[in-house]
Order: sequence, then structure tokens, then C-alpha cells
Amino acid sequence: MPESGSMVIIIGDGLGDWPVPDLADETPLEAAPTPNLDRLALEGENGLMDPIAPGIRAGSDTAHLAILGFDPYQYYTGRGPFEALGIGMDVRRGDICFRVNFATVDADLRVTDRRAGRITNGTAQLAAVLNGLEHDGCTFLFKESVAHRAALIIRGSRLGAGVSDADPHVEGASPLIAHGEDDASRRTAELVNWFVMRSHALLRDHPVNQEREARGLPQANIALPRGAGGAPDLPTFEEKYGITGAMVVEVGLVKGIGKYLGMEVIDVPEAHGDLTTDEIAMAKAVVDALTRHPFVLCNLKCPDVAGHDGDAQAKLQAVEKLDRLAGYVREHAAPNTYLAITGDHSTPVLAGDHTGEPLPLVIWGPHVRPDQVAACGERPAARGSLHRTRGTDLLKLLMSLTLRAEKFGA
Amino acid sequence: MPESGSMVIIIGDGLGDWPVPDLADETPLEAAPTPNLDRLALEGENGLMDPIAPGIRAGSDTAHLAILGFDPYQYYTGRGPFEALGIGMDVRRGDICFRVNFATVDADLRVTDRRAGRITNGTAQLAAVLNGLEHDGCTFLFKESVAHRAALIIRGSRLGAGVSDADPHVEGASPLIAHGEDDASRRTAELVNWFVMRSHALLRDHPVNQEREARGLPQANIALPRGAGGAPDLPTFEEKYGITGAMVVEVGLVKGIGKYLGMEVIDVPEAHGDLTTDEIAMAKAVVDALTRHPFVLCNLKCPDVAGHDGDAQAKLQAVEKLDRLAGYVREHAAPNTYLAITGDHSTPVLAGDHTGEPLPLVIWGPHVRPDQVAACGERPAARGSLHRTRGTDLLKLLMSLTLRAEKFGA
Repeated sequence: MPESGSMVIIIGDGLGDWPVPDLADETPLEAAPTPNLDRLALEGENGLMDPIAPGIRAGSDTAHLAILGFDPYQYYTGRGPFEALGIGMDVRRGDICFRVNFATVDADLRVTDRRAGRITNGTAQLAAVLNGLEHDGCTFLFKESVAHRAALIIRGSRLGAGVSDADPHVEGASPLIAHGEDDASRRTAELVNWFVMRSHALLRDHPVNQEREARGLPQANIALPRGAGGAPDLPTFEEKYGITGAMVVEVGLVKGIGKYLGMEVIDVPEAHGDLTTDEIAMAKAVVDALTRHPFVLCNLKCPDVAGHDGDAQAKLQAVEKLDRLAGYVREHAAPNTYLAITGDHSTPVLAGDHTGEPLPLVIWGPHVRPDQVAACGERPAARGSLHRTRGTDLLKLLMSLTLRAEKFGA
Repeated sequence: MPESGSMVIIIGDGLGDWPVPDLADETPLEAAPTPNLDRLALEGENGLMDPIAPGIRAGSDTAHLAILGFDPYQYYTGRGPFEALGIGMDVRRGDICFRVNFATVDADLRVTDRRAGRITNGTAQLAAVLNGLEHDGCTFLFKESVAHRAALIIRGSRLGAGVSDADPHVEGASPLIAHGEDDASRRTAELVNWFVMRSHALLRDHPVNQEREARGLPQANIALPRGAGGAPDLPTFEEKYGITGAMVVEVGLVKGIGKYLGMEVIDVPEAHGDLTTDEIAMAKAVVDALTRHPFVLCNLKCPDVAGHDGDAQAKLQAVEKLDRLAGYVREHAAPNTYLAITGDHSTPVLAGDHTGEPLPLVIWGPHVRPDQVAACGERPAARGSLHRTRGTDLLKLLMSLTLRAEKFGA
């Protein structure tokens, strides 16, 4: 066998789209000038990819798990752990994770505002007094996210994720007493209940809240966990594939997955998650990472932002960034490198949110069998030789093409 | 997100076919003039659909379960419950259902005719004396079907479906003593054994049998249950999808599934299950149902009848009916309506029975990505962007397109 090759998956976040009347009924990917992607399509194999399965509206987290070869129906343990991963917390196997709201309770402990007036400033200082608490041999790790949102990790032994929410989900009610489904979860529920009361004691007289009270704003005087989930029982990338991998990505949630999988997660200062990102800086980081790892996953965030904003012109610009990024990698990567270009889900500008349609997929490299598809786009891709694949098959296809797959049989 | 849309699945029963030499080696769907279906194909996305899985010869019941999103390998509990549903019996969760033959036994209780001379008249009167029997706290519901066929439901507590047949399946043998696999099924088997003996006592001197004896015909003097199955443990359509649905269908079996799923099953007096059906009356019922429900399933029976009859000309006419039905719905449904046109299985005129080939599928609606398929047919469809899907994916695709799918992940 010849030498094994390297693999890069380049993901345009939210890349897939619907025909847009303002773009002559083309999708942004079909309408934008994409000389590099078109060349990859012409020289490569093309198809459509359902990130999870036909008609399933994927999130970025579940889609990236799938594209990395981990069936999200087996491994996705809910929003808690992935929220914690997404804001850069050090989630470890065995941790129980929660999404948390800073909320406002009155003197009778009734929730008067589930979002504490959508507080924007001071949450880092509030989080600091909750982070690192200890009780009954367990540690509480706490970090603020955007606005009133935060995440909580309970770390210790004999913990379970079958824990109901403390957040009552309606205003006017008291925080709920968390309950556990089994012995370990009951112990964890007691820890949650302790934490909720402790958070009120620590937050109610906090300087940030004194200042909010002086300004007539709702106090962020309690932390309400919900969405309990155990840290996913995932092998590392290296355990699964026998090779190391790296990520060059902009989204915290995807970075968190990479760290959890033991991949090298490379920070690119010029990547800002929007149209100001320097895509060539990201491409250079990919090429550099390929000198250390046979696998690199790169995610460019701006197509998704444009889709959520419903901004077709911004999505065209985002697609052009993706085109330049892919072109640079193709030109500068070692000859025996395979590229796959796709998306993690569709975020059509006319929908403004994720939808379930499949993504175009191009696989390009020295030994592919070029089909007759000459342009990169949702509809040209549908006529290619990859037909319709799933996210969980992508790394298998690349491992095989790069001569890294184990033979099954004799 | 924009407003959610509505969905219609239009099924030509037994629509799929093989090339027919008399039709210049086209299939009936390819050969018939179908301006409406061709337009839907041109403006829509096309593919092939395996109702269950490649090479699986589906029945109408299993195919409709799959197309409604219920995996028949999980939910299909045998012919008994679906036979009972098909003849309009009120099957309830917990019921144990059986197919039954009216049969003839001699004085020594040996089965001399398993089909009682294929009795055609009087079975309703015979069934009436068996329906509503009570024993050991359980009720026996009994209804005649076509010719010597009938269905039995045993309703009560502590019942099981692991019950062997009373029907010996050969003539010259005595009815078999039913046995149960477990405690609940053993109790049920005893009820079956009681019912078989009781049926003989109630039927042997019945006026219908006295008249048959006078005419020298075999008496229908015993009822022999077989094919025990528990009522399927299905959620309702609304429980599964969070929306209500309706059916405009001609086949009793499919109506039974709709009722069991809690759907509105609409009777169209002009629908007769054959070429005399007024397809525009059915189409009007679909459009009307869409004012009350976001989902409607419509099944036109006549293509299947033509296939079973081996009548290519009749199948051409059936396809033209389907074309007019679909055209009317497209023209009169609200703008934000998605249509899917397909079949539940193939009934090729050269086969005269169901076969396992996939069906053409068109999905049409405001935001689909039209492929380059310009005609509705088995072979044009195979070149479309939907590639090859499965019945159980169809409603997921439509729920996603109509912006009704839950996001999986963040």
C-alpha cells in the first residue's frame, strides 16, 4: 500500500440554503462566485449529506458529533454538558452538567424574572462567588455564558444525571425542589437543592446586585439549574481513530467538543466568528496543523450568522470566504491530502434558523473518481457520485481514501 | 422563523410498476398522460422511495405505518389487529385480536372444510350471535369480513398475545387446543378455547346453517381463530407529531390505521375503491381537511386494483385519476402547502401482486430545490435530488420543510 494521506474537513457553518428569489432562485452557494470550490467539485466527487439523517434539524453540536463519527443518538447527552463545553469549561467524564439561568426571586422566594432582566453586565463577578463551592465531597464549577445564561458542573463520585429541573420555567412560582430518578441522581438532586439555596445566600447582597437595585433593575439573586446531563461517554478522537486530530474553528461549542475529544484546538486570533474573520489566517492554521496531525476539522462560522440574520448578501460574502479558505488549503497542503467541503446544517436566509435539508459535499484528493459535477452547490452536488451520505459516514470515507481504514475481514 | 406550512401525502395504492411491452416498455405511470404530475416533478424534488426497505414486499398496512413514520418492524403486531382495524372494528390498546375463519366440522369435530364452502351470504347473521359474548370477565367482539373471513377481539385485563392458533390449517384434523406462552397468554388461550366450543354450540343450529344444509352446502358451524396479535402500542398521530392529521382514503385497512392513530378519517361517498371513484371529490375533501389539519394523507385505491387484475389499460386510467387528484389539490391548497406524491408499494400488472421495487416520490412546495427531473415516473424519478429514501423518512422530510421539526441539539 502507498503511504497514508491526510484529511481536512472544511465546514461552512449553516452552509445549506433554499433557492432565493433575489438570487435568481439560486442558493447563495450556487450564486456566489466560487472558483476554488468549483474546481474542487470538478476534480472531486460530489453528493448530498444529511448531517444526522433525512429531515432531522441538526444543531451544530449534534452535527459535529456526527461528522466526527459519533452517533449523536448514542452520545448526545443533552444541552447541559454541551453548554458547558461551549463556554470553555473543562468538562470531564463523570461530571454532571446543567444549563443555568441567573434569575430574580422576591422575599418569599417566588421567581419574579426567570432571566434577571436579561442581565448583561456583572455576571462574571456573580459567577466567581459560585464557582468552586464544595459540599458533601463534591465541587461546583460555575461559569457565566451570554446574558443571563450560565453553566454548572457538579464533580464528584456517585453522581447521576437523572435530575429534574430547579428552574420552574414559569414566573410567579418558587424554584422547584430537584428530584433524582435513582440513588446517584437523588444524591445529585440534593446537591442541586443545596446549591440553589446557597446561590441565593451568596448573590442577594452581592455588590453587582446592590448596584442593580440602586438602578431599579431586577437582581440576579439566584441561580436556577435545568437540563441535567452527564458528560458524554465518548472515547477520545485518538482512541477511536488511532491518529491525532486538530480543530481550527470559531464556535465555542465546537471547540468544546474538540477539547473533550482530546484534539488540538487551535486559536486563531484573526477569527472572530463573523465576516471580519481573516479566512486566510484560518487556512494557514489548517495547513500548519497538518504538519502535526493527519486530520484537521475547520469550521467557518459566518455563513450561519448570515442565515440567522436572513441576509442573503452577507451569506454570499461568507461563501466567498469559504471559497478562499478552501482554495488556500488545496494549494498549500501536502500533495497526499484529501479535502472534504460541506456544512453542518442548513440555515436558509429565508428561514432564519436551522432546517433539515441535506448539505452539498465535495470530496477531493489524489485518488477520487471525478464525476461530471462542475460546480459547487446544492443542486449540482445532487447529481454526483457520492449520492446521499450521512455525517457519520464522512470520516469513514476519508479514512478509507487515505488508506487508514482497518480491513474488515481477510 | 416564517410560519409553518401544511403537508399532503398523496398515495397511489400499488402505483409502482415494471416496464410493460404493450406500453412500449414504459411503466403505466411513465406511459399515461400526466400533465399535473409532470409539472409537480419539474417544480419539485424527485427520488425513489422504498416504503419499508430495499427489496421488502410491503403490504398496504405496513407501508402506511412506515409512511406515517412508524417503523413496521417495531409496531406491526400481525394480521389479527390489522384485519380487525381493516373491517372497521373499534380496536383499543390492550385488545388481543385474531383472524378467524368460519369453518365446517363434522359430528366428530373434525374440520371438513376450513372455509365453510367459501360462504358468501349470511355471515353477518352468524357473526351477530358471536359478537358481544362474555366469559371470565372478558368480552368477545366479532365481525365478519369478506367471504369466510372474520375477526375476533378479546377485550379484558391480564391478556397476552402469545397464543397459538385454534385453526389446524389442514382439513381432516380437529380444531387445535390453543396454548399460551406466558401467564397472560395462557389465560387468553383458555378464552380462545372456550370461544371455539361456544361458537360451535351457537352456530350449529343457526337458521343460516339450517338453510345451507337444506341446499347441500357446508355449514359454517365453527369459528377458528388464528394469528393472535396485541393491538399495536402506537402513540396517536398527535402525540407523535404535535399536530392533528386527517385521512381521505378508500381502503378499510388504511382507514382503520387512521382511526387507531386518532386521525380524522373522512368518508367520501363518491369514493368506491375502483375506477368509478370521483377523484375530484376526494381532492375536494383533501383541500377541505387542510382547513382543519396541517397534515392530510390521501390514498387512491384504483392503481392497485388494476395491478392485481393485470390490466395495463385500467392502470393507465387509474394513473390519470391520480394526476387529476394531485392537480386539483395543488391548485386549490393554500400557498404554503407541501405535496408529496408516491405509492405504498408496487403492484405491477405483469406480476398481479405486490412486489418490492421502490416507488417514485415527488416533493413539491415553496422552498424545495427543484432538480432537473421533468416527468413523473419510476425512471425519471431515479435521477432526482432525493435519491433513494425510505417511507419512514417521508414525514420527517415534510416536517422539516414545513418548519415543524424540533431542533436536535443547539
